[in-house]
Amino acid sequence: MNQPADALDPPVDLHGAFHVYDTTLRDGMQQEGLNPTVADKLAIARQLDGLGVGYIEGGWPGANPKDTEFFRRAAAELDLRHAKLAAFGATRRAGVTAADDPLIAALRESGAGVVTLVAKSHAGHVEKALRTTLEENLAMVRDTVSHLRAEGQQVFLDAEHFFDGYRLDRAYALEVLRTAYDAGAEVVALCDTNGGMLPGWVADVVDDVVQTTGVRVGIHCHNDTGCAVANTLAAVEAGATHVQGCINGYGERTGNADLVNVVANLELKLDRRVLPPGLLSEATRIAHAVAEVTNVPPASRQPYVGVSAFAHKAGLHASAIKIDPDLYQHMDPAGVGNDMRLLVSEMAGRASIELKGRELGFDLSATPEVVSRVTARVKELESQGYTFEAADASFEMLLMEEAEGRRPSYFDVESWRVITETLTHARPGEEAVSEATVKVLAAGVRYVVTGEGNGPVNALDQALRTAIVQAYPEIAKFELIDFKVRILDQGHGTDAITRVLIETSDGESSWVTVGVGANVIEASWEALVEGLTYGLVRHHVE
Amino acid sequence: MNQPADALDPPVDLHGAFHVYDTTLRDGMQQEGLNPTVADKLAIARQLDGLGVGYIEGGWPGANPKDTEFFRRAAAELDLRHAKLAAFGATRRAGVTAADDPLIAALRESGAGVVTLVAKSHAGHVEKALRTTLEENLAMVRDTVSHLRAEGQQVFLDAEHFFDGYRLDRAYALEVLRTAYDAGAEVVALCDTNGGMLPGWVADVVDDVVQTTGVRVGIHCHNDTGCAVANTLAAVEAGATHVQGCINGYGERTGNADLVNVVANLELKLDRRVLPPGLLSEATRIAHAVAEVTNVPPASRQPYVGVSAFAHKAGLHASAIKIDPDLYQHMDPAGVGNDMRLLVSEMAGRASIELKGRELGFDLSATPEVVSRVTARVKELESQGYTFEAADASFEMLLMEEAEGRRPSYFDVESWRVITETLTHARPGEEAVSEATVKVLAAGVRYVVTGEGNGPVNALDQALRTAIVQAYPEIAKFELIDFKVRILDQGHGTDAITRVLIETSDGESSWVTVGVGANVIEASWEALVEGLTYGLVRHHVE
Repeated sequence: MNQPADALDPPVDLHGAFHVYDTTLRDGMQQEGLNPTVADKLAIARQLDGLGVGYIEGGWPGANPKDTEFFRRAAAELDLRHAKLAAFGATRRAGVTAADDPLIAALRESGAGVVTLVAKSHAGHVEKALRTTLEENLAMVRDTVSHLRAEGQQVFLDAEHFFDGYRLDRAYALEVLRTAYDAGAEVVALCDTNGGMLPGWVADVVDDVVQTTGVRVGIHCHNDTGCAVANTLAAVEAGATHVQGCINGYGERTGNADLVNVVANLELKLDRRVLPPGLLSEATRIAHAVAEVTNVPPASRQPYVGVSAFAHKAGLHASAIKIDPDLYQHMDPAGVGNDMRLLVSEMAGRASIELKGRELGFDLSATPEVVSRVTARVKELESQGYTFEAADASFEMLLMEEAEGRRPSYFDVESWRVITETLTHARPGEEAVSEATVKVLAAGVRYVVTGEGNGPVNALDQALRTAIVQAYPEIAKFELIDFKVRILDQGHGTDAITRVLIETSDGESSWVTVGVGANVIEASWEALVEGLTYGLVRHHVE
Repeated sequence: MNQPADALDPPVDLHGAFHVYDTTLRDGMQQEGLNPTVADKLAIARQLDGLGVGYIEGGWPGANPKDTEFFRRAAAELDLRHAKLAAFGATRRAGVTAADDPLIAALRESGAGVVTLVAKSHAGHVEKALRTTLEENLAMVRDTVSHLRAEGQQVFLDAEHFFDGYRLDRAYALEVLRTAYDAGAEVVALCDTNGGMLPGWVADVVDDVVQTTGVRVGIHCHNDTGCAVANTLAAVEAGATHVQGCINGYGERTGNADLVNVVANLELKLDRRVLPPGLLSEATRIAHAVAEVTNVPPASRQPYVGVSAFAHKAGLHASAIKIDPDLYQHMDPAGVGNDMRLLVSEMAGRASIELKGRELGFDLSATPEVVSRVTARVKELESQGYTFEAADASFEMLLMEEAEGRRPSYFDVESWRVITETLTHARPGEEAVSEATVKVLAAGVRYVVTGEGNGPVNALDQALRTAIVQAYPEIAKFELIDFKVRILDQGHGTDAITRVLIETSDGESSWVTVGVGANVIEASWEALVEGLTYGLVRHHVE
């Protein structure tokens, strides 16, 4: 087997530096549910530049007002250190000159140094979708490329449906590429638009294109076979020197190639330097920051940057990880700015408790009796239905209790009650209402507070928060941002044990607590109280 | 480029039929947050069998009581049509005989026809993690395989960390495989345990193993480079005839190879028949049904089976798709039981509604207006958060309402109320209690009944059941056997929309109903009422 360093021929530099071309802001935004504002797009562009990509495709100026506005504001507001902006557009319409086509004018006037032109290279699409002749399509490519080159822009060509077109009519597909290249296009990106390719097929086609035409080849893959990353790498191994993809693999249907995965594999596995030095270690932060802007929860299992990407569960492994982490991870997570995490699970041994403690800032190596007590407590609690692998804050509270001899506590609960009821003869759409009353003692004062909510836990949360914010103003910043319920013991229905996980945020970070009980409201209450208590500990409230 | 049909050499059948080996119930459950009950695992096993996989790895009997219990119950309760059950375990401990090792005894006594033994094939792991000699490790492999073969079980070997081990010490890694094979192991599965491989590397190693040793090779990949599916295919192209993976790509860190993606690529792209005929078209339904059991929201962008996998944003493509859908999709989605969707119009095609109706005994072919009304209702309700994929009973009620002009109803609800409260100064272990009062009119009589429970839904269930059993004695047989809660709109915490799925049993069969609302109790009540109503319909109560 090849070792990483010589797995590929040395980078061929016939065409200048390798291109990392991001299309998040154009093709990525075709994803179901994504509809960013111009400000969102500018924020994402800054993040992409921070990752060091060479090109940022910003959108299709002229095709919709938002993208036109993006390029206008980008020229004024973006100060990119690494990336060039690219405007995306189509070749001129049939039967007009490029100079007279208003959509081509919009590309010319976008202010982008690069224009990426999408062109048909699939004979069937030319005839059925574009409804013009094969000849006219070639003229459209030739005219548009040479017009924009003459106007001083760099031009890349996106050969749409290239792989399917090559299967149907190889000669025509290649002729489109040659036409663009001869007219001055710097790169022709071969697009697997429908996403049905596999790596071996991509490699064969790219190899043929490189050998036959001599054009500079780029690659644009979709993930419909689950192979977008591998297809992209196969193209590079066959001679492509320009890769397109999207952050977090955003895109229509199953998404585009995940650009961070592609780049990490090229840099860390295939020893190609494709980003400015040091920037790949920003990848995790940037991928998550972009997810904040798009408001798509990041996939925990995402390769390289997912929160679970370097999380280890099996107790079996933990003692070996202590000896040598490299035995159980394929790379140092710091290379992409991620971290190893140990999940405290029912298989938890002493070794993983000690490691987990270290991760949280508790050195337990000198206090084996604390490790023993914590291990025993975790086992006992997990047998009751608790889980600590997702509830770091609850684990930390348990650790504090055993290490410091007491559990942090800021208020005493006297009692609580919650009532949920419907209107008499409620009609569809008339929702039930919940009302909670809590009685607590905080900082020497007894509070009796009633809160309302659209559900029992919401009502309890409102009431508890209203009560103790008077003693602890920090509480005002805390917000319950996620609430998960799991029934543990199937076969007994509502008699079963319920586990509740609650995520609380202070606007800057968040933490997860767990509650367990036969009564879902009781379990929720436990997690709520612990979530607020942990937040106060974290904010160093005495 | 190769066309699909001849992209591979014809399947080599030196070793019997191709193996599709599912490890969802063992390796898949290493995923962060997954902790299924035995009942969950049995339910998933039935789904996997419905997909037609050849082997279902059920867990590690002897290593934890839950997995031991799974094999005990599986022997009694599972009636598998396609799959064989496999028990997972490790080779014997160093320094004891296989016959005397209690963990080997647990494998022997599991009742599974197949045992998959994990063995070290990486010299560094043998010495650092297993802490024994290279010689003793070979003896452990040899003894354990031959002991279990002599006891009448088929044996597969999982060569852990094989690819990394091969890099470190090829000769030793190969010797472990040969030792297992000579001792009677039918397959040696090469595991990329840390997940760092790329397809070209996997192909080179598998090719070498096949050429050098002649063993039957299996492949087990993790997705840490985003290439688990491509790595698996690369191994098959190089001669592997046994593929391991998990439904929905579950697994530790970034997950295992997504088994549906692997199988769909083999069948639909590479023209290999690896499942019983016709079963791949169940893949979407099964992948989603398993996600309901694990309570992990399915990834919408999942290749082949994601709800967005064949979804097209309207605009450019829409009219062309109308002319010829094949221009814009890489395959017919029906091949995996999925549907094309245009995102302007929401989901639920008329054809699938008609098909589903037929499945439930409603012939809708002569009543297109009913199909239209049901399609519109489903669309509307799904946009509110309902799901009918898992809630067949709720769908059937909707179908009855539209086909027969009225919704079956046995009782009218006047109002309900539920109170949950703690004792004053409750101590740990003193659970909250819930008390519900319902006012209903059934068969002309008004009932006002109060029920108690250990949770609000339990209390409501008790009260409702006690009230209407007086009019409908059949109710006495009904039992609520499962209750699942999912928060739909993350980011709003307890303010979010809640979906509740309730499974009700009559002792012989069970059915699932759905409720949705801002208030979790309201959503639960809706599903409870529908569950009892559907049960009465099913029992032909007038």
